[in-house]
Amino acid sequence: MTLESIRYRAGSLQILNQLLLPHQTAYDEICSVQHAYEAIKSMKVRGAPAIAIVGCLSLAVELRAGAGGDDPVTFIRESLCHLTSARPTAVNMGRAARELMEFAENESMEKNAEQLRESVIAWIEVMLERDVNDNRKIGNYGAQHILSGVPRDSVTILTHCNTGSLATAGYGTALGVVRSLHALGRLKRVYCTETRPYNQGSRLTAYEAVAEGIPATLITDSMAALTMREMGITAVVVGADRVVANGDTANKVGTYQLAIAAKHHGIPFYVAAPSTSCDLSLESGRDIVIEVRPPEELTSINGVPIAAPGIEVWNPAFDVTPHQLITGGIITELGVFLPSELQAALTGRLTAL
Amino acid sequence: MTLESIRYRAGSLQILNQLLLPHQTAYDEICSVQHAYEAIKSMKVRGAPAIAIVGCLSLAVELRAGAGGDDPVTFIRESLCHLTSARPTAVNMGRAARELMEFAENESMEKNAEQLRESVIAWIEVMLERDVNDNRKIGNYGAQHILSGVPRDSVTILTHCNTGSLATAGYGTALGVVRSLHALGRLKRVYCTETRPYNQGSRLTAYEAVAEGIPATLITDSMAALTMREMGITAVVVGADRVVANGDTANKVGTYQLAIAAKHHGIPFYVAAPSTSCDLSLESGRDIVIEVRPPEELTSINGVPIAAPGIEVWNPAFDVTPHQLITGGIITELGVFLPSELQAALTGRLTAL
Repeated sequence: MTLESIRYRAGSLQILNQLLLPHQTAYDEICSVQHAYEAIKSMKVRGAPAIAIVGCLSLAVELRAGAGGDDPVTFIRESLCHLTSARPTAVNMGRAARELMEFAENESMEKNAEQLRESVIAWIEVMLERDVNDNRKIGNYGAQHILSGVPRDSVTILTHCNTGSLATAGYGTALGVVRSLHALGRLKRVYCTETRPYNQGSRLTAYEAVAEGIPATLITDSMAALTMREMGITAVVVGADRVVANGDTANKVGTYQLAIAAKHHGIPFYVAAPSTSCDLSLESGRDIVIEVRPPEELTSINGVPIAAPGIEVWNPAFDVTPHQLITGGIITELGVFLPSELQAALTGRLTAL
Repeated sequence: MTLESIRYRAGSLQILNQLLLPHQTAYDEICSVQHAYEAIKSMKVRGAPAIAIVGCLSLAVELRAGAGGDDPVTFIRESLCHLTSARPTAVNMGRAARELMEFAENESMEKNAEQLRESVIAWIEVMLERDVNDNRKIGNYGAQHILSGVPRDSVTILTHCNTGSLATAGYGTALGVVRSLHALGRLKRVYCTETRPYNQGSRLTAYEAVAEGIPATLITDSMAALTMREMGITAVVVGADRVVANGDTANKVGTYQLAIAAKHHGIPFYVAAPSTSCDLSLESGRDIVIEVRPPEELTSINGVPIAAPGIEVWNPAFDVTPHQLITGGIITELGVFLPSELQAALTGRLTAL
């Protein structure tokens, strides 16, 4: 079974409600842009790529039903503006909105309302397909690269946070690499950290692994180094929120610590990310501002307090791993690159491995 | 205010009920050996030194009321045997029982029942005093050693798990060092990890810090390396469950990972432990068997599930930090020693710094 977080057929969209995971697997019907806005805002769907896909697909559903009447361009513009405002920090929705708007405006020069609706729907469906395909490429490039170091053995991977079907249009980035290894029959086991404080590992990655029969073991974040020493970890593979020009990578807090421990044990450390997560406008990780989130994420679970009242809390959501620690490489849909090769690879001056 | 986890006056014993922490601060009266047995068994009191102290003090309370009648030795023997069985893995209760029994048997040769009761009560009261005094010595030696590296500045410490008043007869080991620094006016701040999966950091260490006004910040275990890089950590100080002859140290899981991160950042890493936690009968940490605990500690909190059903779990309670990573030293009541000096120091062939 393959876990479907987004179910789309022409004119119909359903999403797996992540607020109910891992205890309940329920799909919510998304009939309109307003539905999608609410689902994104309330975090029924999360993960920057997934947010953009669901937003655009909800627009496709409305357009298929004839929304926008004689002036679909205005409807599209207003819808995209509304969707982008649901979680303004997620960069992918904004980028998709800009690209789609430019496309729709160009198309509107030559096409009538009905034809325009058809083209925009087709553009969105291609976007969905491309995201999944890019993830499959990431999965395959990553699996090949890891296996090239161990020609015959099956491998054991350690990963962090959730980077799977639940964070993307499907398949996933770092977890996509794990899926590819599993599909090749070469995955012995994946260890996933629970990923405090929001527990994306124990709630979401563990859920995906159980749903698809991927052999997986949950550990606390504090057990990662011991796991590296005792469990024969072949490689550590994580996702990325942003990879900058020199390869420094912002990702879920704890990634930096994993990279240090991997280096200590001589285990290759990989970052898996589509090229759209790479931001060449920033020179180094020093330029990335780290979001600090509310103390309550640490001091309570599901509203129940778990820490001493009155204690101060520091809750940075991300950390930056310096490129020197990314010893395995950066896995993109274009291939696997060393941090020092990334800029050339993304600007077409270097071809894939 | 100083946090009192054990309140003892001649003939009266109360313990802070740790099952209710951090949400409720309540003391339970311990009137008998049976009361103490139940409190230890149910984990109202935990931490190997604290278990031994509470057990012996409950015996002192009964003896003060005349328990044992004409044959106190039999009563003492049966009581100690019962107390030791409450949590047989905690080594300190067993050691205290052996020493106390030997003392009682010797005394019984020369003394009548009433005199014997008095001597045993006095022995137990000395034991309580000695444990607190040893912890204070650990605190002072550790504080001096850390401050010797930074003659004028105040310091920032990172610690793990709970090693404070709640785990000992009072004051604490690693947290005792923090207390001493605070008492000297030289503590800027202590960062405490929440210490998954049992959350001793967020529940107990945070509670002690808030109760005594020690400036403290709670972080997840995954944030430790980032904290070292961003927050100017002067030293990492942790406790120990067992230190073996070469200095390898078994302690709460996550300690090994902290030691690797400290080494990466060039931050001195200290282990604080009384000499009674040192086990020279084992050559190296390879000989220490690591206890693996139930999956439920990771997959639920207070009985509420927090992870995907069906996920496999690995839950080692401890890890072993190799002596090479203990760069600051091992802080005992005899002084601070390098791992390579420990054996000589404990056998009297080396005097304290």
